[in-house]
Amino acid sequence: MTKKKHKILISNDDGIDAPGIYALVNEIKKIGEVLVFAPDKQQSAVGHAITMNYPLRATKSYKNGKLFGYGIDGTPADAVKLAVNSLLKEKPDLLISGINHGANTAISIIYSGTVSAATEGTVLGIPSIAMSLTTYGKPDFRYAAKLARMLALTVLKKGLPDGVLLNVNVPAVPEKEIRGIKVTRQSKARWDDWFEARKDPSNKEYFWLTGRLVVGEKAEDTDQVAVENKYVSITPIHYDLTNYDMLEKMKKWKW
Amino acid sequence: MTKKKHKILISNDDGIDAPGIYALVNEIKKIGEVLVFAPDKQQSAVGHAITMNYPLRATKSYKNGKLFGYGIDGTPADAVKLAVNSLLKEKPDLLISGINHGANTAISIIYSGTVSAATEGTVLGIPSIAMSLTTYGKPDFRYAAKLARMLALTVLKKGLPDGVLLNVNVPAVPEKEIRGIKVTRQSKARWDDWFEARKDPSNKEYFWLTGRLVVGEKAEDTDQVAVENKYVSITPIHYDLTNYDMLEKMKKWKW
Repeated sequence: MTKKKHKILISNDDGIDAPGIYALVNEIKKIGEVLVFAPDKQQSAVGHAITMNYPLRATKSYKNGKLFGYGIDGTPADAVKLAVNSLLKEKPDLLISGINHGANTAISIIYSGTVSAATEGTVLGIPSIAMSLTTYGKPDFRYAAKLARMLALTVLKKGLPDGVLLNVNVPAVPEKEIRGIKVTRQSKARWDDWFEARKDPSNKEYFWLTGRLVVGEKAEDTDQVAVENKYVSITPIHYDLTNYDMLEKMKKWKW
Repeated sequence: MTKKKHKILISNDDGIDAPGIYALVNEIKKIGEVLVFAPDKQQSAVGHAITMNYPLRATKSYKNGKLFGYGIDGTPADAVKLAVNSLLKEKPDLLISGINHGANTAISIIYSGTVSAATEGTVLGIPSIAMSLTTYGKPDFRYAAKLARMLALTVLKKGLPDGVLLNVNVPAVPEKEIRGIKVTRQSKARWDDWFEARKDPSNKEYFWLTGRLVVGEKAEDTDQVAVENKYVSITPIHYDLTNYDMLEKMKKWKW
């Protein structure tokens, strides 16, 4: 084969030292040249934050004595922007973000740094995939990493429409229990969250966020229900936030 | 009138001391009871970040010797979540976020802390409006504040569908030059951004984000073109990111 090797940019929000990105890189190396640009520390729930008021730095990161990638002291979107707009010579053929330790289904998508890195790739014109494993307990990333390789090949072959990315959630169950792949929509399930009010050692009050996902919606075509039923969930998402139904209705409003 | 006063929650991303929130509060006071919960410092471009790994504090903020509201040491979404889930006794009837100093049109919506505060209100079941003034120069918030009051009354009367919020951009021109109100969709215009590579005093490299909005799309029904043409732009947006066209197509994909 004289075919040019695919260039695949990998990022995440758990940080460049997280086991999920390591498992992903090891699989994706089998099908292309991997370029890792990821936050240098945990950046969960940063949403689509970008850094404008501070400078960014890129630091080489090594694993097992070899260059693994670059750690960026910013958000996932920063890492992708800096890689594509400044540090890489060529635009990558594909971006994969993850593998996140924890689900990014339903409303969590809008808080997710993992999805944000993939969204930024899409904004920059790169077909992009966000990968998450649905456990907050001890993760086994092996099946999700193999699946990412398969999806990468599919997307490299078929492409994705402008402005569309794939949000993939993999159930955290042994591979033989996975029942298949479902193309889903974003569930309307939302977090029922609250704040624990506590006192610090100086007796001043502070608040700590906690909560749980309330699955109000039981429809089987949703990301949340699919993963609960042990299906891999793939949701095509975009960043055109316009609600077109309401737009048509509002055109008739008198101001 | 014995009618109960509307409770209106106000937040922003420029911080509780910003002139835009002050102008907004002074107008909205005329139509209801105003409750201010906003970040205690500038939080632009934080996207929909929320704080989970650190505690939050709420500090009373005074203006002209009177209690103005509460400054939260977190993001705009944190401020709204903490207010609604813990600090307020009742759910507000309406949320207004702003007035932002700078446009939140096109792709900027996904980076915007102003929009994020309003999105969080919507997630929590409160009809919500994001207000932005399209200048980064010296702002005059007076017309935008009056307009916010009018829109507040409209939304209090008509309500908004579940999961839908209004993203409003006001051209930064004298009131008499405003040509009217347009209901718009989110433009596909995007930032052409790059990083300036610089050296610090120790001769280490760092990168600073800069860029400009590229208005590739000239359609008059978009938020970006509307404000350039001196119309107030109102875009109904939502946080269901599913791309339904692609979902239907992908159902036929073989995995």
